[in-house]
Amino acid sequence: MAKRTILVLGGAISGPAAAARAREMDDGAHIVLLERSQRVSYAACALAYHASGEVPSLDALDREREQFFWDVYRVKVRTGVAAVTIDATARAVLTPTGRVPYDALVYALGAESVVPAIPGLRGARNVFRFRTLPDLEGLLARLERGGRHVAVLGGGFIGVEAADGLARRGAKVTLLEQGDRILPAFSPAASRMAAEALRAQDVVVLEGMPVTRVARRGSDVRTLEIQGHRRIGVDAVVVATGLRPRTRILARAGARLHADGSVEIDGRCATSLPAVFACGVCVSVPHAVTGRPVWLAQAALADKTAQVAGACAAGGDARMGPTLGTAIVRAGEVTVARTGLTGADAAALAGMNAAMARVHAPSREPFFPGAADTQIEICFHRGSGRVLGAEVVSRSGADKRIDTLAAAILGGLTVDQLAAVDLAYAPPFSPVRDPINVAGTVAASARAGLTEAWSAAELVARRRRVTVIDVRHGGRESGTIAGAVEVPLDALRSRLEAMDGRPLVFVCDTGRLSYLATRIARQRGREAGYLSGGLATWAAEGRPLARAAADSGGTRKRARARS
Amino acid sequence: MAKRTILVLGGAISGPAAAARAREMDDGAHIVLLERSQRVSYAACALAYHASGEVPSLDALDREREQFFWDVYRVKVRTGVAAVTIDATARAVLTPTGRVPYDALVYALGAESVVPAIPGLRGARNVFRFRTLPDLEGLLARLERGGRHVAVLGGGFIGVEAADGLARRGAKVTLLEQGDRILPAFSPAASRMAAEALRAQDVVVLEGMPVTRVARRGSDVRTLEIQGHRRIGVDAVVVATGLRPRTRILARAGARLHADGSVEIDGRCATSLPAVFACGVCVSVPHAVTGRPVWLAQAALADKTAQVAGACAAGGDARMGPTLGTAIVRAGEVTVARTGLTGADAAALAGMNAAMARVHAPSREPFFPGAADTQIEICFHRGSGRVLGAEVVSRSGADKRIDTLAAAILGGLTVDQLAAVDLAYAPPFSPVRDPINVAGTVAASARAGLTEAWSAAELVARRRRVTVIDVRHGGRESGTIAGAVEVPLDALRSRLEAMDGRPLVFVCDTGRLSYLATRIARQRGREAGYLSGGLATWAAEGRPLARAAADSGGTRKRARARS
Repeated sequence: MAKRTILVLGGAISGPAAAARAREMDDGAHIVLLERSQRVSYAACALAYHASGEVPSLDALDREREQFFWDVYRVKVRTGVAAVTIDATARAVLTPTGRVPYDALVYALGAESVVPAIPGLRGARNVFRFRTLPDLEGLLARLERGGRHVAVLGGGFIGVEAADGLARRGAKVTLLEQGDRILPAFSPAASRMAAEALRAQDVVVLEGMPVTRVARRGSDVRTLEIQGHRRIGVDAVVVATGLRPRTRILARAGARLHADGSVEIDGRCATSLPAVFACGVCVSVPHAVTGRPVWLAQAALADKTAQVAGACAAGGDARMGPTLGTAIVRAGEVTVARTGLTGADAAALAGMNAAMARVHAPSREPFFPGAADTQIEICFHRGSGRVLGAEVVSRSGADKRIDTLAAAILGGLTVDQLAAVDLAYAPPFSPVRDPINVAGTVAASARAGLTEAWSAAELVARRRRVTVIDVRHGGRESGTIAGAVEVPLDALRSRLEAMDGRPLVFVCDTGRLSYLATRIARQRGREAGYLSGGLATWAAEGRPLARAAADSGGTRKRARARS
Repeated sequence: MAKRTILVLGGAISGPAAAARAREMDDGAHIVLLERSQRVSYAACALAYHASGEVPSLDALDREREQFFWDVYRVKVRTGVAAVTIDATARAVLTPTGRVPYDALVYALGAESVVPAIPGLRGARNVFRFRTLPDLEGLLARLERGGRHVAVLGGGFIGVEAADGLARRGAKVTLLEQGDRILPAFSPAASRMAAEALRAQDVVVLEGMPVTRVARRGSDVRTLEIQGHRRIGVDAVVVATGLRPRTRILARAGARLHADGSVEIDGRCATSLPAVFACGVCVSVPHAVTGRPVWLAQAALADKTAQVAGACAAGGDARMGPTLGTAIVRAGEVTVARTGLTGADAAALAGMNAAMARVHAPSREPFFPGAADTQIEICFHRGSGRVLGAEVVSRSGADKRIDTLAAAILGGLTVDQLAAVDLAYAPPFSPVRDPINVAGTVAASARAGLTEAWSAAELVARRRRVTVIDVRHGGRESGTIAGAVEVPLDALRSRLEAMDGRPLVFVCDTGRLSYLATRIARQRGREAGYLSGGLATWAAEGRPLARAAADSGGTRKRARARS
């Protein structure tokens, strides 16, 4: 057989990964990579960490250069060359400088930022996307010339990373999200904790604040107007309002796309066009839980599709595994992370018989330095007990818990198995009972009917028909749910008899004591549940705290009751 | 039904956990806990971290006090009371102060340190076990009175933790292991990296050094003699040479024990005696991979058995999951961790058709601060591809990788799934391609026959029958395997034809370039493999490095070839 020509369109992460994998599979192939910018392999996802100063040199994000690809992988890289048209019938790509024939094509042109249609925004010289190394170079050069007020438009992953990074550098950052909260892919509690953490490092976070127009001085944007009633002066603007798959060329060639513009691929990353594969952040992949294709602009996922597309383009056999949509973002001192389906995916969960449990547990033994509250929301299937997804928020170890949960979901673990999974314990790393074990235990207990775990929203909806009991000592001082009665746990047993017959909902700081209270009440024949995640989650969601109602006769003796 | 009396023997971690879980299941029960020391609930496993000064107060390790158990759990704690005899027929425990009847008994007396029979050691006033709070109090009081040279006997988990902790405090520590290496539960490479890391913080690590006798002055040990030819002066001695299950009382009552003295239990943590359950570090539990019972003195596992024993003693239904023997230990700046079966479990793996793959990969993107080399050894089943176990060594993130691998093993993931598992990526947390993905890819590739991964031991055994080729630039300068020929990867393709017909084994720093070299050679019909884990693992195992043989005509052009 004659030498196969494999043509790869696109650099950054997925194109180079596909080319390298193709080489591993077919050392005889002629492999060419076209990239329209001047850099073949760069870490677009790391811009925020050069902005922050943590990665001192922008060159460090420029991963591998053309010579490396030739020396090691014998991949001919041509930078500064953009594909214009794909002729799938003739198996050739047209570029401004000529026609490049192929036997197999790997399409990896990624995604592009969308600049919103706000009058005056487009074309301004101090407005920057946050997607390529030149974007960041332009922004930083502008800040060096004076002025340190940066407005970041968009509170998704990229906007939060950009705001966080620029604030660490010392810029005066305003983060504007037009929706009602930043990071809408997470729970309201997680969004709020992330916003608070950003505010703690002096980022002004404005949610529910759409920018309606901008005022310019010359070619620069100088003022943002928010729905007519507020104005913000800026020296530079970062646009992080969204991405869209860069798939026009493929669409024109006749490939099937999804409604969101992402490329439809099969398990081998093959498109609907013959001998054309696609990978990276322009494709959708099947979700492990729903089985439906999802478009996730995520670098690690892009790398995985690239390996499959590269292998298959070279005649190898590889299959794309399902994705979990695992994602993580640092916001100040807080890390929020998710995997699988969570409460934030209400639409996908509809009809799935899913339930949730929330816990707060320390990331290490409380006596060990660096121990931090870790909030886990577990989503599980009521019938099988299988874990469907999870969200983790913590100042310490959120990355470790989310990765463990991702492996657990892929392996089909149930919440009972999660309660028992044998994780590595030593005080510098985790507590004896890991937050994951705690989450599994709490979920398993609810599933077995031993307790009933109420979300804050459920409690609010049924507030008038239940009696809320705060089982902490001193709940009145630290604030509790309006109308809650304070009955410390050590007095509960003797006072249950005298309580009215309405369903009881117990609350405490984290859910630990109120969980036990629920067990006590239910064993005495009472209908009882507890606030899942405790007042920690309640407060994190921004719900109001009040003084508790009078403690009508309970003991005042203070126990060392840690809830 | 009359009130059930549940009697729990033993404090520390598992007894209190069992009592609390029993209370959750049966709020009406009469629950009594007997503990022979003065503290009911303490973190024995955290002694090293008070020794180090990281946990400033020893009181912090004293987790919950008697009053807490009464107020919250209505558990009657009696400290200073030791069980003497169990009368399983009459369902009662005899103590020096009387007879305590029970309906269900939870036996949780743990394990005790064994002081070796070295003449002069026992009874000396400056010789301390490292198991209880009083042990540590005694040791620290002794060090405060002057003298800072501590000898730690035993290089297992507890000995390494003790040596590490005491060195952090500023003590002059000598760690003595009579076997040929510390941490024998790990690979030779891991043992060596741990020893080096301890030496870097001025611990004198002496392996293969059995203490044969000690010389005393008065009631203190002053000198240790090592096999007649070396003497070490000491101010205090910590004995960490081993533990044994504290099961004599249970044995005398007629319960079935394993040969190692640990208690035989079923899935409900029931012993062979009626209504007697056992939990904590005195029991053996089934291993998830082999199915055979194993005795592991591990606090997190103890806690898990305690929850099952407590629930079942209270009439609940709970089942003990299989264990993976997950363990982690910090040695200086290095963390070593394991889960499932690894190369160190040769006996358990015999006949299992297991294979290994080793990788070195960065814990974060190399450009991000704190990125550290992460060595993973994956053990997998050749037939099914299932992961059987793993070992991780790194200065960063070993805890996260081992937990993820533990969940993966419990979920039955294959190495192909490990290659594709969707872990959370952002630069502060991990690289785009996580070390776990890399390990999965390398193992899957070997399993699919695309490459052949040789361990250092295999290479040594077949050294005379193969040609070893170092594919790095500059291998000769940095040291390589004796007799290796230097043929940089960029020259390999043109020089393969001229090489002799012996099997080729490629080497580089980590395995990355030599893996590709193997693919190149095999596609040209050569029998070829590569050194798994590269020279990093080779050197970590303490194997010798030599200058490479002359580069007979290869190109000298330097590529930016990072291996």
